[in-house]
Amino acid sequence: MKFNIALLAGDGIGPEVIDQAVKVSDAVAKKFGHEITWKPALTGAAAIDAVGEPYPDETHEICASSDAVLFGAIGHPKYDNDPSAPVRPEQGLLKMRKKLGLFANVRPTFTFPSLLDKSPLKQERIEGTDLVFLRELTGGIYFGEKGRRDEGETAYDNCVYTRAEVQRLAKKGFELAMTRSKKLCCVDKANVLETSRLWRETVQAMEKDYPEVEVSYEFVDAVAMRLVQWPNSYDVLITENLFGDILTDEASVISGSMGLMPSASMGADIALFEPIHGSYPQATGLNIANPMATVLSAAMMFETAFNLPEEGKAIRDAVNKALAEGIVTEDLADGDKAYGTKEVGDYLAANI
Amino acid sequence: MKFNIALLAGDGIGPEVIDQAVKVSDAVAKKFGHEITWKPALTGAAAIDAVGEPYPDETHEICASSDAVLFGAIGHPKYDNDPSAPVRPEQGLLKMRKKLGLFANVRPTFTFPSLLDKSPLKQERIEGTDLVFLRELTGGIYFGEKGRRDEGETAYDNCVYTRAEVQRLAKKGFELAMTRSKKLCCVDKANVLETSRLWRETVQAMEKDYPEVEVSYEFVDAVAMRLVQWPNSYDVLITENLFGDILTDEASVISGSMGLMPSASMGADIALFEPIHGSYPQATGLNIANPMATVLSAAMMFETAFNLPEEGKAIRDAVNKALAEGIVTEDLADGDKAYGTKEVGDYLAANI
Ligand SMILES: CC(C)[C@H](C(=O)O)[C@@H](O)C(=O)O
Ligand SMILES: CC(C)[C@H](C(=O)O)[C@@H](O)C(=O)O
Repeated sequence: MKFNIALLAGDGIGPEVIDQAVKVSDAVAKKFGHEITWKPALTGAAAIDAVGEPYPDETHEICASSDAVLFGAIGHPKYDNDPSAPVRPEQGLLKMRKKLGLFANVRPTFTFPSLLDKSPLKQERIEGTDLVFLRELTGGIYFGEKGRRDEGETAYDNCVYTRAEVQRLAKKGFELAMTRSKKLCCVDKANVLETSRLWRETVQAMEKDYPEVEVSYEFVDAVAMRLVQWPNSYDVLITENLFGDILTDEASVISGSMGLMPSASMGADIALFEPIHGSYPQATGLNIANPMATVLSAAMMFETAFNLPEEGKAIRDAVNKALAEGIVTEDLADGDKAYGTKEVGDYLAANI
Repeated sequence: MKFNIALLAGDGIGPEVIDQAVKVSDAVAKKFGHEITWKPALTGAAAIDAVGEPYPDETHEICASSDAVLFGAIGHPKYDNDPSAPVRPEQGLLKMRKKLGLFANVRPTFTFPSLLDKSPLKQERIEGTDLVFLRELTGGIYFGEKGRRDEGETAYDNCVYTRAEVQRLAKKGFELAMTRSKKLCCVDKANVLETSRLWRETVQAMEKDYPEVEVSYEFVDAVAMRLVQWPNSYDVLITENLFGDILTDEASVISGSMGLMPSASMGADIALFEPIHGSYPQATGLNIANPMATVLSAAMMFETAFNLPEEGKAIRDAVNKALAEGIVTEDLADGDKAYGTKEVGDYLAANI
């Protein structure tokens, strides 16, 4: 098969980890007889520096006409101190999500047995955790009308959801639950928010179409607790944009494997794959960043966007082998020999 | 001194744990020569059952004319399944906060050395944790305009903050920080929300009035992570209503001492004290609920509302003694002998 993949390396360690994912994907293509054409494009602080815009139109054209997008990380400290600055890398991210219609962010949290001791949680709490958040990504308070009145003394942000927006996200949740343990948790704050009541009633009405799925409804504050207490009691969770932002980040640190967690953002036409970690500016250019989350994002891309599970498995097997053999970057080396970003990428590519 | 204290026992285990706090407070009053008049009033599901309203006007009159409010817990399973039911206990809670002007919810999270092993976190992560959240409690998306349009197909919730609302909450945060380690963290989502930008700029402008306080600004998603990773890196945190709801609950489970955590909600004229745990309906009437969080809430009341630190300390010392001697309810008994709610209360009162 032939694929065009938009390549958005971004800022900080983004380019370094993306290079390894390209190398590993090319090895997969070679082994399985596919042809990948990479389409690099600017994004983030790198794009602001080059063309004054974090998500330039040209980048959008490239993404929209590709079969998938592979994304590194964005964010640069020079934009960190003033969140009201007129142009910021994050705005590019939000614009990209909206323009590409990436309404469902898929964030798995799972454990690697060899990394359990990295978790801040006690082993018996974290063992066996394997959950997936589906976070709504193009609606809610992120995109509602916002502004000031009373000469700047009053600020407002509007949170808006339509039934159709909830339905398309929930549908993905039910479908995902059907491929897993058939348990779905709808996270909301229906005891306070009208948007949450819309979420809840919409999901309740869909239950009859998926009679095998057991649905539970939990308030966001209760989920924030139980994620720390009994993360392995969850399977598939669906939620709105802002709750998803907070809870997926909370979930990401409990596993001890944060440096390895991939993610996908899916729309009707195209999907984007990226590691959940940030641009880690302090590590830029040092060849120390862990490329595994980005490499595993490429695995998700083969599996989800191209429907090629064998190819994805080849990548996951290589990562497991590297972990078993200790071919890891310093964040996982535990005092043993640490390998460079590039060396880990080489090992993974060689083991496809 | 003479005090009138409104007593809102509420639902579930509320009445049982409140009884113990009354007993212990009366012992304190006797020892230190104070006179307490308790003013019981209806609230929660109990009030709905009795008068059709979760926060009746009569209850409000009693609260507003007292020197402090001591609160148990509210919530009953019969109201849990339908969050859009016309009358719900939670509405009483929100109405009470608003009508009493309780704009600052003070939620400490600290550890008891003897309970560290109850924490889901590894001991080295949780040791030494001693932080306080100040959650804004009468503004934001909880109280903004909400509703439906498009024949119910679209729902909205408005989040609104004024500079004055941020200032009065932040002022409490700066003042609290001055009495502790002079570290203040402002939690927001200023990279996305206009209300958060107002929060940030308001707090930034106040920094010059508290030159000794070191202020940091962190995004809510980052705080959700670091609370699990390094909770002891925080001291005083200030945040808006919804973020506070989520993060204070997350923080409450990390210590392992959730059953012991008190809280206060303060306004200009009056303050309310309550345990952070819920109404625990399954345990109602069984004499097994842990009364210590409510008793420690009474300690906070003496310290904060009445400015009587010695009286508060007498209560804390009694609780520490009970913990050391193993005079605890089943949640803390660890296979050893468990005492009843009432027996723990008796022990605490006898040891004032
Ligand atoms: C950078 C920020 C705007 C973004 C978000 O809040 O969505 C990030 O936290 C994320 O989760 O991808
Ligand atoms: C019951 C609910 C309305 C309430 C809230 O969200 O404020 C509760 O979760 C709390 O934190 O006191």
